[in-house]
Amino acid sequence: MEKKCEAPIGVFDSGVGGLTVAREIMRNIPNERIVYFGDTARVPYGSKSKNTVLRYSRQIIRFLRTQEVKAIVVACNTASAYALEEIRKELDIPIIGVVRPGARVAAEATRNGRIGVIGTEATVSSGIYSQFIREQNPKLQVLGKACPLFVPLVEEGWLKDPVTVEVASRYLRELMEQGIDTLIMGCTHYPLLRSTLRDIVGEDVTLVNPAYETARELGELLKREHLENPCSGDCEAERYQFFVSDLAEKFRQFANSILPFDVNRTRQINIEEY
Amino acid sequence: MEKKCEAPIGVFDSGVGGLTVAREIMRNIPNERIVYFGDTARVPYGSKSKNTVLRYSRQIIRFLRTQEVKAIVVACNTASAYALEEIRKELDIPIIGVVRPGARVAAEATRNGRIGVIGTEATVSSGIYSQFIREQNPKLQVLGKACPLFVPLVEEGWLKDPVTVEVASRYLRELMEQGIDTLIMGCTHYPLLRSTLRDIVGEDVTLVNPAYETARELGELLKREHLENPCSGDCEAERYQFFVSDLAEKFRQFANSILPFDVNRTRQINIEEY
Repeated sequence: MEKKCEAPIGVFDSGVGGLTVAREIMRNIPNERIVYFGDTARVPYGSKSKNTVLRYSRQIIRFLRTQEVKAIVVACNTASAYALEEIRKELDIPIIGVVRPGARVAAEATRNGRIGVIGTEATVSSGIYSQFIREQNPKLQVLGKACPLFVPLVEEGWLKDPVTVEVASRYLRELMEQGIDTLIMGCTHYPLLRSTLRDIVGEDVTLVNPAYETARELGELLKREHLENPCSGDCEAERYQFFVSDLAEKFRQFANSILPFDVNRTRQINIEEY
Repeated sequence: MEKKCEAPIGVFDSGVGGLTVAREIMRNIPNERIVYFGDTARVPYGSKSKNTVLRYSRQIIRFLRTQEVKAIVVACNTASAYALEEIRKELDIPIIGVVRPGARVAAEATRNGRIGVIGTEATVSSGIYSQFIREQNPKLQVLGKACPLFVPLVEEGWLKDPVTVEVASRYLRELMEQGIDTLIMGCTHYPLLRSTLRDIVGEDVTLVNPAYETARELGELLKREHLENPCSGDCEAERYQFFVSDLAEKFRQFANSILPFDVNRTRQINIEEY
């Protein structure tokens, strides 16, 4: 049992976006080890089908199991929307996604009952945020908007650029006209646009970052299941491990730009073999 | 031998972009049958590594061989840049890419010796256009610029949008300042932005569409190798066949918007099995 508690958390995403979730886990439950996998050979997931995202997610989970993880975080909204419920049935360790924690907090935060959700085409068209929010409170109204240009704009590094402001204004216009008072950043890249989004929606709209809520919920889950790591940072040589399916060096550079420490090593694996 | 002449041409791309090449083949050598494959489960290729693009290309070629194609067109600049030379060594049927025909025509078209190339990160950083252009004429100067937002802008349908004009102006500014008189649209999506690009570069810059040049070169190759299809359209029930690795219906709709006829059927296969 003690050995299991010291096992790492498996965290995966289609690419680099899930690092915003890993970052929150590192901040909020710093005792935990992490094995991160980014599927950079097949990124993005947000424009792909449910079956494809499910097949990719299963391969990644088979890989993470080889790393003897004690729990799994699906740090990707699309995979959380399309694959989580199926995969949970197949697993004997805890697994959580980013959608339910984000939905729960948004349902608590809204005052006028109108919640906006921005995300990939897949996440928005799945209706999963709407479903989870209405489980909390069937009276709430959920308005979705796919924002397919946000991920490439973030990856281009144009975080506060006039082009990004114009694109974001256009994407958000309809949601703002509908009078939302809460906006879920339903894609792991979007918190990197927080400042631009804040300028557009103003101070009266609550911005929900599911990454933060997920890290909190993971902490509670580990406590409840008696899976917390009793070890502090000293007992582990390689606290955080990073694996990708392509372009390890490019990933490492991106990781170094958003994590609070330098990643020394990222390993590449052939995910299709799992 | 006759049977082989009636065999189809295999055409592949990371997704829908290669349809601009297929369209030119249909226009220029209308007797030829086509089996098109779009790797929509793993699109895009332009931000991935050489080894990954090579592995994916090999899988696709194994699939196309099961369709008994008589020749292969790599209708993707990234795969042409990263995989074509390796793959050619492994094949006993003719294969051509889009880069060499585009490079040849650009070298012929320039008057001041300054050629611009726009494409994905992979295509531009590979330096392959530069290499092929200098093989034609070592004195020519080649200036590359990666335009990673163009593909998502095209897929969003913002072909003549002010946002696209601003992004394109910014991407092209440096090339224009360097005084290019010829610009290669080095990604199969870019011809769909031709009108916006034309407005920015003006009438004095020659726009090279490698798709068109590739179709012409393919026609010459088939003639030279005595592989031309003697059959006119009447003898073949299914002249053009379309396969994808994901989202067949979405692909079909996009295909219908850019091809001069309606695609009735697109079949999905699991490309990882090849």
